[in-house]
Amino acid sequence: MPGNERTSAAIARAIGCESAGIALHRFPDGESSLTVAADLADKDVAIVCTLDRPDEKLVTLLFAAELARDLGAASVGLIAPYLAYMRQDMRFNNGESVTARYFARLISRSFEWLVTVDPHLHRIASLESVYTIPAEAVRAAPAIGTWIRVHVENPFLIGPDSESRQWVSEVAQYANAPFLVLDKVRSGDLNVSVSVLNSPSLKQCTPVIVDDIASTAGTLIAAVHAISTGGGAKPVCIVIHAVFAGDAFASLKATGVDQVVSCNTVTHESNAIALDRELANATDQALKRFNPRRRDAGAD
Amino acid sequence: MPGNERTSAAIARAIGCESAGIALHRFPDGESSLTVAADLADKDVAIVCTLDRPDEKLVTLLFAAELARDLGAASVGLIAPYLAYMRQDMRFNNGESVTARYFARLISRSFEWLVTVDPHLHRIASLESVYTIPAEAVRAAPAIGTWIRVHVENPFLIGPDSESRQWVSEVAQYANAPFLVLDKVRSGDLNVSVSVLNSPSLKQCTPVIVDDIASTAGTLIAAVHAISTGGGAKPVCIVIHAVFAGDAFASLKATGVDQVVSCNTVTHESNAIALDRELANATDQALKRFNPRRRDAGAD
Repeated sequence: MPGNERTSAAIARAIGCESAGIALHRFPDGESSLTVAADLADKDVAIVCTLDRPDEKLVTLLFAAELARDLGAASVGLIAPYLAYMRQDMRFNNGESVTARYFARLISRSFEWLVTVDPHLHRIASLESVYTIPAEAVRAAPAIGTWIRVHVENPFLIGPDSESRQWVSEVAQYANAPFLVLDKVRSGDLNVSVSVLNSPSLKQCTPVIVDDIASTAGTLIAAVHAISTGGGAKPVCIVIHAVFAGDAFASLKATGVDQVVSCNTVTHESNAIALDRELANATDQALKRFNPRRRDAGAD
Repeated sequence: MPGNERTSAAIARAIGCESAGIALHRFPDGESSLTVAADLADKDVAIVCTLDRPDEKLVTLLFAAELARDLGAASVGLIAPYLAYMRQDMRFNNGESVTARYFARLISRSFEWLVTVDPHLHRIASLESVYTIPAEAVRAAPAIGTWIRVHVENPFLIGPDSESRQWVSEVAQYANAPFLVLDKVRSGDLNVSVSVLNSPSLKQCTPVIVDDIASTAGTLIAAVHAISTGGGAKPVCIVIHAVFAGDAFASLKATGVDQVVSCNTVTHESNAIALDRELANATDQALKRFNPRRRDAGAD
């Protein structure tokens, strides 16, 4: 899809298949049309579309899946390096939408398989408990761990809240570094974090805050403040998905962090950790495992 | 849906059922969530959403259908006074999308029936050849005919191009007025129209241009120019669906038309012809005809 040409070409190069762009035309009345300049007949098609700002992308993405089938594609899968709508996974108030499930249904009706990077699984145990199609989730932890080993001297990893534990604990393994998870960095509870962060061992290290998504960056900013109040060094912030709504990135940088680094799942100036190879491997796996035709014929 | 509260309440009043609004919340990261403050359990639900600017509305509309089912609705129908994506109904170039069919599939998967007003049927013979759900199309012609009889002295109806014939011919019957259809009002062929319009009988009348949709308003503007070049009086312009992209409405008014009038299928300052009663009748019909439960139990 438009905006994903680089990722699409990198994956295609890595697995040795063709890639083609989809041209999107917007009419003055707010309708759109798509054109693909490739012969899709009998091909196994993977559409690449990262899904930050999902509402403005979903209609054309669903059209693209229909178009691929219309042009004779044998199968249609989705590579969404960032997968949206993972957070509203239960009804918090009466009459409220559970969009994690609704979004998953819309995607599952249009695609035969899904590849993504570290979905924000929290109350949902696995992607396949909401997506009814086979799904492969790339883990960013090895690449992030490697980046930390190469770029950060004496790292001490910090998870900014309890939800981040699954990511920071895994990254710590690959970085071969100690970690702690802040339980409460909301303003009222800042003192709790500060006391934890006031340990002599942490003060000799470079704090590295690790989280999966930066959206408003509120959690990251609170963690930076907690570290500086505790007397720690300027932290490095690493996120997998650099969504950064509005002026969130500027606000985070204004806290005086040493560096903000992200994986390239959402195109952003902070991108420093490429996951193209991992996405290519997962796509190759998905095509082999989830494609009935290929499975019947044996892996090729 | 947000923006359709007036229509929704008017239809509900007319058929004697409850109506409730859907609150839409947009998160900073571009995701959205919906809340409906009504008990939908075991109810037959009709969601009202006019579909001009469809790409920005479709995701939340599809979520709303999922939400209604999730909250226990017995059935979910769609009232879309203006139905988008009727024009790209065949492949004009290689690799191009046929969005009329794709859009119809998305709607047909989420709703059990559809009510709309005069869809732009051109190469598609009927709504149900693309929509796989039962669909009821309100005809605006009687209401427009009545409006003309009441408001225009000595009207002569003009269809601005061949596609408009189906609408202008029907409106002419209800207005009890003569009509003609301009075959070619594209700039190169302006003289053809002008000679047709140069007839003495037309010059004694008020020209009334009738079309189904005003989007860029290019066709209407060309017709106004043809009439004025032919020496006709300032025309009244009537359209069913006032989509008016960008500055199209200002451009049309700048031609010096006498008046621009539309039905209230898309909320616009030109709205003058209400179709609430017609929509209510069609909805009542749809609920009785297309709802399996109601059909089994007999009309209620």
